[in-house]
Amino acid sequence: MQIDSLSPEACAERVRALMYADDKAAQHLGMVVASRGPGEATVRMRVLEFMTNGHHICHGGYIFLLADTAFAYSCNSYNQRTVAAGAMIDFIASAQLGEELLAEAREVSRGRRSGVYDVRVTGPGNRLIAVFRGRSATIKGEFFSLAPPGTEDHTP
Amino acid sequence: MQIDSLSPEACAERVRALMYADDKAAQHLGMVVASRGPGEATVRMRVLEFMTNGHHICHGGYIFLLADTAFAYSCNSYNQRTVAAGAMIDFIASAQLGEELLAEAREVSRGRRSGVYDVRVTGPGNRLIAVFRGRSATIKGEFFSLAPPGTEDHTP
Amino acid sequence: MQIDSLSPEACAERVRALMYADDKAAQHLGMVVASRGPGEATVRMRVLEFMTNGHHICHGGYIFLLADTAFAYSCNSYNQRTVAAGAMIDFIASAQLGEELLAEAREVSRGRRSGVYDVRVTGPGNRLIAVFRGRSATIKGEFFSLAPPGTEDHTP
Amino acid sequence: MQIDSLSPEACAERVRALMYADDKAAQHLGMVVASRGPGEATVRMRVLEFMTNGHHICHGGYIFLLADTAFAYSCNSYNQRTVAAGAMIDFIASAQLGEELLAEAREVSRGRRSGVYDVRVTGPGNRLIAVFRGRSATIKGEFFSLAPPGTEDHTP
Repeated sequence: MQIDSLSPEACAERVRALMYADDKAAQHLGMVVASRGPGEATVRMRVLEFMTNGHHICHGGYIFLLADTAFAYSCNSYNQRTVAAGAMIDFIASAQLGEELLAEAREVSRGRRSGVYDVRVTGPGNRLIAVFRGRSATIKGEFFSLAPPGTEDHTP
Repeated sequence: MQIDSLSPEACAERVRALMYADDKAAQHLGMVVASRGPGEATVRMRVLEFMTNGHHICHGGYIFLLADTAFAYSCNSYNQRTVAAGAMIDFIASAQLGEELLAEAREVSRGRRSGVYDVRVTGPGNRLIAVFRGRSATIKGEFFSLAPPGTEDHTP
Repeated sequence: MQIDSLSPEACAERVRALMYADDKAAQHLGMVVASRGPGEATVRMRVLEFMTNGHHICHGGYIFLLADTAFAYSCNSYNQRTVAAGAMIDFIASAQLGEELLAEAREVSRGRRSGVYDVRVTGPGNRLIAVFRGRSATIKGEFFSLAPPGTEDHTP
Repeated sequence: MQIDSLSPEACAERVRALMYADDKAAQHLGMVVASRGPGEATVRMRVLEFMTNGHHICHGGYIFLLADTAFAYSCNSYNQRTVAAGAMIDFIASAQLGEELLAEAREVSRGRRSGVYDVRVTGPGNRLIAVFRGRSATIKGEFFSLAPPGTEDHTP
């Protein structure tokens, strides 16, 4: 796909749509991903039966998965492909079966080769479930191409 | 369940069996958990279609889930309940659709209130996929009770 | 020292003063510590010659030391003794010889046994140098005692 | 400085010597740095009065500084300049005034752009004080040049 120009917000939204179409992991978990402009994204996920360990508590790994997804959509929002180099999570409170969780990612720092992103995961009543910090690494490639100047398609 | 006494290895194996019976998350992902004695455990998982994002690469969150599970079985292996307080993962190489991954957890340190555990995740050919470090927090409760001396069941 | 009652802000300031009097590490490095109320603190430090590695760049370890100090004053500000269980730092930009650095710590979460604190380290012009996240563990003891009701000292 | 060829061990030792000559931070703290070949290094440091906070306990920041130094000598040992992108430390036990601490760094992974290194810090009697994990980022430059073939100096 090749387009002429985009605002940063429209670019982030276009990346989100293209990423999500291929993101079987996010789809399988029923995640709802929203772009919030460059460097930001939110993801919602409900805690389902298969995500629990004993006692109807959400497995920490699924909370990580949720936060990691918000991180991925945030750091890729500039249409420059990035991957996760590493991440750290601190678990604050448990999440229960049936609860809807919200992950909100924001950019802390973005350099040419790497970036740092923070994600807060909350449950009902804005209860803090976990905090996550991810480090991204820029790789080659983009999600879509902008047309170089003078190459716009003027076919009627 | 109440029993008389156990070797550390038998205790770890009994905890593993009791935890796994309730662990819907591990079961759902087809994880095979093996005890390796006190403070150690291994978990195997195959990368399935629903774990991938674009390009048939395993989502990092599922690699975390695998490592986190090995961590959980390791730190609970003493029959003293523990939970994850936090964890950090560094992603080294990608894992492909269909590959079987192995997570090996070992204890770095174990105190009265908290412990530190390291997990290596490898793919075919012992290729290093990720390294994970988890911090556990001891909570109240155990998985099974040992009979106090003199209370053994002597029914014929 | 035994006193009657204190506002949270006065409590934090009293802890800061008592901690600093014993804090040879902070004194040696010329750190200026300010309380910002419960769960918050700031620390200033100038990059001196002995803190540099080659090329007049501040050794990352001293940036950690600065952030860790802000963390310590924040998590102890309730007059309940805490220690650092662990910490993570991401280095964003280098700090130069002679620059004054500012570390600002704030509380992310505080539980009965542990807490999470974030610290931003900035240089001149609000340039982001590093982000730090620390996990605290509560231990026994406090910095000063409040008088139980009815035991106030009424000597003229 | 330009030389012909070196074994990996000799290369690591040459880098160590060149780094240490400029490393005012390590010198100031009395650190003794030893190369252990490519990707490995050890550093010894005694806990001095100015490194303590109250109660004659070594400030955690100095333990980080020690570990971070071992990390730096390890990841630079190939004569390709690297810097610390981030690091995580878990504190296991306290270190006392007067104790000699040993940091041992080893390579976990080394890629073209980044690497992961583990450091153990121990005190007398091999007591575990802290574990540290650092992520390195490769930058431009080297510590010394190898002569290109045919340019060796044959002056008698």
